[in-house]
Amino acid sequence: MAAALDFYFDFSSPYGYFASTCIDELAARHGREVQWHPILLGAVFKATGSAPLPLIPLKGDYSMHDIERTARFKGIAYRKPSALPIATLGAARATLWVQSTQGNAAAAAFAKRLFKAFFVEDQNISDGAVVIELGRQSGLDADALSEGMQAGAIKEQLRAGTDLAMARGVFGSPYVIVDGEPFWGFDRFDQIEAWLKNGKI
Amino acid sequence: MAAALDFYFDFSSPYGYFASTCIDELAARHGREVQWHPILLGAVFKATGSAPLPLIPLKGDYSMHDIERTARFKGIAYRKPSALPIATLGAARATLWVQSTQGNAAAAAFAKRLFKAFFVEDQNISDGAVVIELGRQSGLDADALSEGMQAGAIKEQLRAGTDLAMARGVFGSPYVIVDGEPFWGFDRFDQIEAWLKNGKI
Repeated sequence: MAAALDFYFDFSSPYGYFASTCIDELAARHGREVQWHPILLGAVFKATGSAPLPLIPLKGDYSMHDIERTARFKGIAYRKPSALPIATLGAARATLWVQSTQGNAAAAAFAKRLFKAFFVEDQNISDGAVVIELGRQSGLDADALSEGMQAGAIKEQLRAGTDLAMARGVFGSPYVIVDGEPFWGFDRFDQIEAWLKNGKI
Repeated sequence: MAAALDFYFDFSSPYGYFASTCIDELAARHGREVQWHPILLGAVFKATGSAPLPLIPLKGDYSMHDIERTARFKGIAYRKPSALPIATLGAARATLWVQSTQGNAAAAAFAKRLFKAFFVEDQNISDGAVVIELGRQSGLDADALSEGMQAGAIKEQLRAGTDLAMARGVFGSPYVIVDGEPFWGFDRFDQIEAWLKNGKI
């Protein structure tokens, strides 16, 4: 099987959520898997001098409108969360813990559950207790998950993973790297599909 | 005929150039016209705290790559200009002068000629003499154009037009407003098409 797609995202990113709803299927159509990489965009924005979309003058208001319209256009379930952006440290660490203990497929499934909780059910996944309860409902060991989210190794993995992402050029969410080729944004999924089909554009 | 699409762009914007190659045809397919609005993104970026794409860390390098790939993906002629971004004051004023003296269709044709000169032929359209020569080749009166570009009324029209654009929410290029609905970016042209077809999304 050809190399996996690297999928970088922040749990607070609406377009990252849109990507999460279809990237596994997109890759599978071309015999590929997806490696899910939760990162912290806050750290990235500090390095690039950017800011979360909702906080940028003019662009922020437009984006909130565009997100709802794009959800309708693509037929993706979406309800605007009460608070946006939120801190995603806990959700990212929980996903990395699932990945390191139960593999990438389990981590992808849990990440999708977290995204849905936030962007469809308006659950506040910046709250560690909410993340743990969602884990419990997903069949994870709640105590082990709670401990894992606090483990030094997991914290360090998220820091290092975010640094490594930036070293690879990642500056936003979603950001997908296919065979070394970078694609930023949900609106580049048509180009990703073409790349997977033809190996070039 | 239904209301015209308002098309806001800066002559230094590659994605604005991409939009310029097809927006008249897109509108015509749905019985619409396009009102072309050159603006100065520099003034907009000052207000929003943003910067020209090529100058943003990580995002700048990615964007240069994405622009070339998107041109190939969409089959649009493109050669990376030697300098980017450039000052577009003269090109914008020239277009407004053509618009005010010869109407919107002539202005659109001249704007397309300027975009092509910059993004295909690598002509430096920040140089007023280049703009005037392109005008001459397009059948415009070179002396009148040269004078028009310096006229106080045209300068004021560009200032006021850029302010008005910001008041309508414009923060980037291309930016298209259809029946009050805003669309930012060449990658929203599929949504514009859907809107023109259905009157909603």
